[in-house]
Amino acid sequence: MKIVTHNKNKYLEYKEKFYEYGIKLDWVNIEYMEIQSDDPMKIVYESVEYVKKIVEEPFFLEDAGLNIKSLNGFPGPYSSYVHNKIKNSGILKLMQNIEDRSAEFYAIIGYFDGNETHLFKGSVKGKIIEEEKGVNGFGYDPIFKPNNSDKTFGEMDIKEKNSFSHRSMAFNEFIEYLKKFGEKNKI
Amino acid sequence: MKIVTHNKNKYLEYKEKFYEYGIKLDWVNIEYMEIQSDDPMKIVYESVEYVKKIVEEPFFLEDAGLNIKSLNGFPGPYSSYVHNKIKNSGILKLMQNIEDRSAEFYAIIGYFDGNETHLFKGSVKGKIIEEEKGVNGFGYDPIFKPNNSDKTFGEMDIKEKNSFSHRSMAFNEFIEYLKKFGEKNKI
Repeated sequence: MKIVTHNKNKYLEYKEKFYEYGIKLDWVNIEYMEIQSDDPMKIVYESVEYVKKIVEEPFFLEDAGLNIKSLNGFPGPYSSYVHNKIKNSGILKLMQNIEDRSAEFYAIIGYFDGNETHLFKGSVKGKIIEEEKGVNGFGYDPIFKPNNSDKTFGEMDIKEKNSFSHRSMAFNEFIEYLKKFGEKNKI
Repeated sequence: MKIVTHNKNKYLEYKEKFYEYGIKLDWVNIEYMEIQSDDPMKIVYESVEYVKKIVEEPFFLEDAGLNIKSLNGFPGPYSSYVHNKIKNSGILKLMQNIEDRSAEFYAIIGYFDGNETHLFKGSVKGKIIEEEKGVNGFGYDPIFKPNNSDKTFGEMDIKEKNSFSHRSMAFNEFIEYLKKFGEKNKI
């Protein structure tokens, strides 16, 4: 299987997951064109359309984002850009004096099997905490605490994060699909 | 001439400008696909590529954004999305206790004459003020005060804003081009 991403951490998280299923994951380290849209499923679908012209199938890519309820879903599809610019400290500033700290991490996998694009979505609900905790993971991990955990993603190692994460929920859908149909699609 | 935009205010500002030159502006009110990029020139170029498949030439479209220096250029190409989500109050929260309030509004016009795409850029430097002032314009206008003015864009009427704005600077480049080459391009 091939993952198309410019994000090394994302590659490493998926590598770990596929390893458990005895599947070797190759890293295609390129940046690809993404569209602007409020609909993350559409963004991923169009990204696959773009990538399938330049990368041999089968491959997958994934777009993840953070929706903060009291900020109307911000930073959403632009989570990565926003994090580069205003960091976690910017998000915490925006959340000052806001009571409802609910947020949701989502991940959408777009898999191209050579004929069709398949989309798999995972998400995890949690809270934006008051200050950064932990140094693991990347992006918003140190300020996001999933429900039913007393740690932020930033305080978890990859294995522990994988047991909770949006990325894992999407991956589980994906691997179920591959188990059923993967053989004919030469993973 | 035709402007392609989903933003009525943008149409009205350009209508006013073209009117001064005796050119009637038609409004093509559609949403078009934009790519994600840190380079606004690239975004506009690709938008023209997309629109020219569905709108008859000649037409132009324009992408504008606000770069706030102390926020590393945020909200930049996603200014419109960010404004919808966190409003001016969110920007003011992010700017709390920040001394350097320099910002720049930019506008990039992409004009397709039937053969080629031409890009025209305008920008205006100013400051993010401490609280919203004025109710005119749209977006970040009430929190942006251009240098050499004691009013925000939100406190100016269209005519006065047009004498300062990034949009006008881009338009001036555009109209100079049209005056030279417009005839053969059937504006």
